[in-house]
Amino acid sequence: MEKKKRIYFFDEGSAEMKQLLGGKGANLAEMKRIGLPVPPGFTITTEVCREYYAVGGRLPDGLEEEIIEAMHRLEKEAGAKFGDPENPLLVSVRSGAPISMPGMMDTILNLGLNDETVKGLAKLTNNERFAYDSYRRFIMMFSDVVRGVDRQLFEEALEEIKKKYGAKTDADVPAEGMKELAERSKEIYKEQLGEDFPQDVWKQLIMAVDAVFRSWNNERAILYRKINNIPDDMGTAVNIVKMVFGNMGDDSATGVAFTRNPSTGEKELYGEYLINAQGEDVVAGIRTPKPVKELKNDIPQAYDELVRVAEILEKHYRDMQDMEFTIEKGKLYMLQTRTGKRTAAAAVKIAVDMVKEGLITKEEAIMRVTPEQIETLLHKRIDPAAKKILIAKGLPASPGAATGAVVFDTQEAVKLAEEGKKVILVRPETTPDDLHGMVASQGILTSRGGMTSHAAVVARGMGKPAVVGCEEIDIDMEKEQFTAPNGKVYKKGDIITIDGSTGEVFEGEVPLIDPQMSGEFKELLDWADEIRVLGVYANADNPEDAAKAREFGAEGIGLARTEHMFLGPERVQIVQRMIMADTPEERREALKDLGKLQKADFKGILEAMDGLPVTIRLLDPPLHEFLPAPEELAEEIRKLEDEGAPAEVIEEKKKLYHKAVELAEHNPMMGFRGCRLGLIYPEIYEMQVEALMEAAAELKKEGKNPIVKIMHPLVGHVNEMKRLREMTDRVAFQVLDREGIDLKYKVGTMIEVPRAALTAYQIAEYAEFFSFGTNDLTQMTFAFSRDDAEGKFLAKYVEEGILPKNPFIVLDRDGVGRLIKIAVTDGRKTRADLDVGICGEHGGNPESIEFCHIVGLDYVSASPYRVPVARLAAAQAAIKHPKK
Amino acid sequence: MEKKKRIYFFDEGSAEMKQLLGGKGANLAEMKRIGLPVPPGFTITTEVCREYYAVGGRLPDGLEEEIIEAMHRLEKEAGAKFGDPENPLLVSVRSGAPISMPGMMDTILNLGLNDETVKGLAKLTNNERFAYDSYRRFIMMFSDVVRGVDRQLFEEALEEIKKKYGAKTDADVPAEGMKELAERSKEIYKEQLGEDFPQDVWKQLIMAVDAVFRSWNNERAILYRKINNIPDDMGTAVNIVKMVFGNMGDDSATGVAFTRNPSTGEKELYGEYLINAQGEDVVAGIRTPKPVKELKNDIPQAYDELVRVAEILEKHYRDMQDMEFTIEKGKLYMLQTRTGKRTAAAAVKIAVDMVKEGLITKEEAIMRVTPEQIETLLHKRIDPAAKKILIAKGLPASPGAATGAVVFDTQEAVKLAEEGKKVILVRPETTPDDLHGMVASQGILTSRGGMTSHAAVVARGMGKPAVVGCEEIDIDMEKEQFTAPNGKVYKKGDIITIDGSTGEVFEGEVPLIDPQMSGEFKELLDWADEIRVLGVYANADNPEDAAKAREFGAEGIGLARTEHMFLGPERVQIVQRMIMADTPEERREALKDLGKLQKADFKGILEAMDGLPVTIRLLDPPLHEFLPAPEELAEEIRKLEDEGAPAEVIEEKKKLYHKAVELAEHNPMMGFRGCRLGLIYPEIYEMQVEALMEAAAELKKEGKNPIVKIMHPLVGHVNEMKRLREMTDRVAFQVLDREGIDLKYKVGTMIEVPRAALTAYQIAEYAEFFSFGTNDLTQMTFAFSRDDAEGKFLAKYVEEGILPKNPFIVLDRDGVGRLIKIAVTDGRKTRADLDVGICGEHGGNPESIEFCHIVGLDYVSASPYRVPVARLAAAQAAIKHPKK
Repeated sequence: MEKKKRIYFFDEGSAEMKQLLGGKGANLAEMKRIGLPVPPGFTITTEVCREYYAVGGRLPDGLEEEIIEAMHRLEKEAGAKFGDPENPLLVSVRSGAPISMPGMMDTILNLGLNDETVKGLAKLTNNERFAYDSYRRFIMMFSDVVRGVDRQLFEEALEEIKKKYGAKTDADVPAEGMKELAERSKEIYKEQLGEDFPQDVWKQLIMAVDAVFRSWNNERAILYRKINNIPDDMGTAVNIVKMVFGNMGDDSATGVAFTRNPSTGEKELYGEYLINAQGEDVVAGIRTPKPVKELKNDIPQAYDELVRVAEILEKHYRDMQDMEFTIEKGKLYMLQTRTGKRTAAAAVKIAVDMVKEGLITKEEAIMRVTPEQIETLLHKRIDPAAKKILIAKGLPASPGAATGAVVFDTQEAVKLAEEGKKVILVRPETTPDDLHGMVASQGILTSRGGMTSHAAVVARGMGKPAVVGCEEIDIDMEKEQFTAPNGKVYKKGDIITIDGSTGEVFEGEVPLIDPQMSGEFKELLDWADEIRVLGVYANADNPEDAAKAREFGAEGIGLARTEHMFLGPERVQIVQRMIMADTPEERREALKDLGKLQKADFKGILEAMDGLPVTIRLLDPPLHEFLPAPEELAEEIRKLEDEGAPAEVIEEKKKLYHKAVELAEHNPMMGFRGCRLGLIYPEIYEMQVEALMEAAAELKKEGKNPIVKIMHPLVGHVNEMKRLREMTDRVAFQVLDREGIDLKYKVGTMIEVPRAALTAYQIAEYAEFFSFGTNDLTQMTFAFSRDDAEGKFLAKYVEEGILPKNPFIVLDRDGVGRLIKIAVTDGRKTRADLDVGICGEHGGNPESIEFCHIVGLDYVSASPYRVPVARLAAAQAAIKHPKK
Repeated sequence: MEKKKRIYFFDEGSAEMKQLLGGKGANLAEMKRIGLPVPPGFTITTEVCREYYAVGGRLPDGLEEEIIEAMHRLEKEAGAKFGDPENPLLVSVRSGAPISMPGMMDTILNLGLNDETVKGLAKLTNNERFAYDSYRRFIMMFSDVVRGVDRQLFEEALEEIKKKYGAKTDADVPAEGMKELAERSKEIYKEQLGEDFPQDVWKQLIMAVDAVFRSWNNERAILYRKINNIPDDMGTAVNIVKMVFGNMGDDSATGVAFTRNPSTGEKELYGEYLINAQGEDVVAGIRTPKPVKELKNDIPQAYDELVRVAEILEKHYRDMQDMEFTIEKGKLYMLQTRTGKRTAAAAVKIAVDMVKEGLITKEEAIMRVTPEQIETLLHKRIDPAAKKILIAKGLPASPGAATGAVVFDTQEAVKLAEEGKKVILVRPETTPDDLHGMVASQGILTSRGGMTSHAAVVARGMGKPAVVGCEEIDIDMEKEQFTAPNGKVYKKGDIITIDGSTGEVFEGEVPLIDPQMSGEFKELLDWADEIRVLGVYANADNPEDAAKAREFGAEGIGLARTEHMFLGPERVQIVQRMIMADTPEERREALKDLGKLQKADFKGILEAMDGLPVTIRLLDPPLHEFLPAPEELAEEIRKLEDEGAPAEVIEEKKKLYHKAVELAEHNPMMGFRGCRLGLIYPEIYEMQVEALMEAAAELKKEGKNPIVKIMHPLVGHVNEMKRLREMTDRVAFQVLDREGIDLKYKVGTMIEVPRAALTAYQIAEYAEFFSFGTNDLTQMTFAFSRDDAEGKFLAKYVEEGILPKNPFIVLDRDGVGRLIKIAVTDGRKTRADLDVGICGEHGGNPESIEFCHIVGLDYVSASPYRVPVARLAAAQAAIKHPKK
């Protein structure tokens, strides 16, 4: 067998080799290939990472020799020798997976320094302070990353040195202090590990490579992959690159830049840099950096070069780039380029702009925006008319507004969120360890860091509102409180509101309002509409929601639940009268009153959707849902008896109690509900059909165009559908005949019982349309009662990988999906023009929408706010799976 | 279009034409064909009945003319003229469906009599009494059947006449009295209907034919068809036959006879007759008839003829025949022959005997016995050792013993049965109107009627114990009580026990014991075993049931539930300790104690089934089933507090209460149960597997041959099965390794969640066998919670025909069955030697067993008492659906 090539120099790779070289390595190679300034270096492949784990978590045999050989070639390219006290070659050792996992894995800079080479570096650069600063940083990073020594110990040592030399900032520490700090750092290493800091640079290198591979499976990397659906066996590459120094004086700098504004999408060079600093200083958010445009003043020729490189890169990659650069004594080096993460708004604007610039196609534009980003754009924002008490202002790091209780501890944020509380995570800065807490929070507020700090990047990725670098507030982590500029103290549990679009922080709960859609947003969704095959309907139970859905582009109502029309204090009384009726006449009387109200409801929703189909589902929940719980009534009766209430009052309550007991069920999910009610008490559905057809007839008379679809819930047997169809047609005909109106309508059914899917070929004889109720269908197919499962075992099932995903969020293709396929195929065999859609919550979930497209549904129906998401997801599905 | 032949004379038909001519008509034709003495007559086809209903419930056009034409031909054959006062032709008009529905539809005798012809008949027969008796009977029957006049009015008139003439029995009424009674009967007709009794014999005939067709859809006929699964559109034929008279004096008689004893199966002519009577007198059970053997003394030549005919008929039909005959002045006429209904014991004996006699094949024998009959044979009987207080003795009309509260009213019997009470229906005699009450009762006791009375025939058909003709008891329907011969009074609600095999009636509840199986029974089942393809296992949870099952022929245990092993006062305490455990250690401790007990359980059952497979299902029900209900605990706590119980006692109860609340579920059927428990609390299943393998290892050491199948419940996803398989193999290996035993075992799963069936191709990778849990699978597939559905809508669904059958009794082939087919096919694709069975209740239901055979399951598993039923049903399925 031919030996696999394990190491690629930058001039041996290209952007296409991402899987093998990782994103960073491949892009460094690509930049080299197209002639951009990149320091010399090489990449150890992701295959080696897999090998590393395959052999039990150690460097595979022979790798060490290959690294040494590569280093010798690098020495030649760099014109310096590794470990040479005269002219030492220093390198960075960085992770780089095929998919970017920012900050999740480890990096070591300045490797190759020891007690000897540091002197050489000092002499060579004529900058002793720089050399020892680099050395002490290296020792700290190595100790932390490779050996797991607490970084805090080194930070404390730095503070002591600063105190000793009266330095206000790190930069004020003199060379002598740095020298001392380096010594102290070595001592810490020895104290913690019982051995000397390794002086052998080759040993340093091998240990560092090992540590980077090891970091692929650290806890936060695993969590990140899980959240982002990144396969665990992908592996990371390791990049070994000659160090260039941004901290060699005021003509040196380091920074990150985006080819377009990642927050708004504006076409402008955007980013931050620090003069006389190393890269980690920018990302870590410890010093607040300057906007990249100011570089023009600080180091003009390097700025111009950066602008030139940015233009080349964007054209080359046909997408917005996120670049890392270092300027060493006026010369620009590109250390990384990758597709830049961006806010949802920026994603949309950039995609649409690039189509207009002729850079990409409409299809590409659609694929560049994720459905989740679309959802973000529908986030609420602060009501401009609201009265607000401003606490402070920071950087607008991730758009959207959020309200919640202040919490300082990540674990506590998680705990409170699990209890259903809304929290805002407030921290000086965030680290990858805070990921859990960020997921659990409504929004994030930090007092330090810039627009590219950890908190900012991660929050944008999650679509969560974030305000960062809010230096005006003073956080006391111990007391769990922060102080506003005006001296007011906000404690744990106090409610605040943040606006991630403006950077403002407000006291208390501020009213939020619905989002508006930008022109680009509308344009992109219009393109999506051109491309998608699936129809997009909305689930809405009232005229307001229907209007909202229509505004968001819904082409109809896929599910209007009528049980909500049975609620409200006035109505529930009538409903109870109906339930308690002793005779069909009494029941009919109560239903008559209800019918009048329902008619008005139906008219409203049909009017809002004038000209578009409205699917009305008849009463679904079990009747006991309209009565108080038996225990509640028993308690009330006890109380009334204690109070000596009149006998007839108690009698009435007792009647109610007995009814509630009679109607109680062991498994209400599978009990006396849905069309079972409609078949045993036909007068209920008759009333609903009558009210609906009367509403439609009236609208028709008013010149409107109501399009009615009547949907029966929980059908499981063709005979149910047959009877319901007959009843529906009979009542509808009576109304239309009486009103003298000609109106087409459709009668169909939910497919939410497995048996309905399995016998779809029978049911389609009487049903003109199917709508998959995937919530219930998932419950029955899995035998999961959602109410019980989530808390008791489902979360654990997902956590432990027994279930790949929560099937109530992402449609289960193998099980539930198979039933759907059977029903669609069989149903259409019986009735070629059968109209088939989905109205479960999955109708708004992109992965599930993709499946709906694949199996050939006619439409998906989602909640109004998810309609734009569904439009985009449907278009993406159509692009990914073109129909022949 | 050629006109369809509507009328067939007896010499135009044959036994094969049952569908068209009905059973009675076809068999009369057949008897005619083979030269047996049958009166002349013809049959109007069942097609005409369908036509009758198709045109809206009236005689179709042209039929009347065709009947008249046929009557003229009949006049020639009979040598008499219809309506001729000199020589009148009289006919019977009888219903006769393709499938016998005894007593359900209407019959009219002596038609053709009027004020003139009756005189002719008197003159012709020289018997005025006979002529007027015939006339008054005809008027009564016509009034009742054709016009719906209450028969009771005529019976009262008869009583008055008897009183007037001092007659003790009907036979004592002189000719004068009969003449008067005929006049009085015509008056009743006029009083009730406001018109004269029709004197036009043609009008009589047409009205009678109409009435018979109409009776196809009377209430009791509809109910009978429903109970017996007879299609409603089959229709009845109408037979018009020249009357022959069994009431023309002491050389005349009428009776019914069986070619073999329908109760025991003995090969002997068996039956009853009445001298000087008409057919209805025998069937109605009003006069108690004589055993047929006595006919030899009464009318010897007719008896010899009957014996000859019986032999011919049995050989010709190759089955036991039930014949109706009339002897008119010494001459035998056969009025009907049909396959005789028989008790289960008789069915088995006759089938086995006939194979030995060379009349039929083993396959035919197997098809001649219904699985329901087999079940009947497994009915309990009275413990011979029990102390009994005999109340009275009647005829042993339907075997088996039953205990229940005395009830006299049919409606009340139904009501009490619905409340779960066991009742014995006690009546002077039963009529088709009592069908409901008979279904609802444990057994039937009548004071009148013979072995072929309504009560006897119907009870045998239902497999219900019955004692009839118990004339020793005196029933007072008004007071709702009966008096025993010794004067003791038994009131409504008193408990009695009846023995339908001996005719005895006992006071109170008498202990019953299990049935024994006859030699023929065993022989038949042995033949079934030779023929069937399906294996037959049993569901048994303890050694006793397992032994019983083995005795009944079970080839293994298909389902041993382990939750029953968690019950009992001692065990439930340990289980509660396990549930309440605060730490895994505490839980393990409790489980250890439980493990010891389970091991002994497992050992017992494995020993009982030594050498046969035993399928052990691990714990299935939700844990809250082992705790008291929260309301119960709340009540206890309230009480303890009121009593001032010690704080720690209350605290303990409160802990239990909180746990019970925590574990409570909205839909426990779909909640935290089955393998979900085993995956979240692995120590429970680990304990069970360990205990099981230890039990098996011990038996192996003792030289036994335990065959273990470990079954995981409620699997829905392959990953569940994968983990469970790993766990099972790990624990089993540990035990076997420790014990130094080599033992093969299988690990498999229930298929009871729809998703498991849909993803069987995945699950079969890890499961070595499947067992369909069709109870739960039916619940999930239909979304029917059995507990809720039965009372709330399922009964009504079946009653109204929305569901053809209760799917919890008869497996739903279209829905649940389709899932089973998918799982079998897909599962075997993945694992060719996958072992597949069924262990839901359907495993003991013949129709469902047939389906299991068709889809190619390896075995069915039924409750021990249904094992013989399953053996027979499986053989029948194999005969009906031979495998290629």
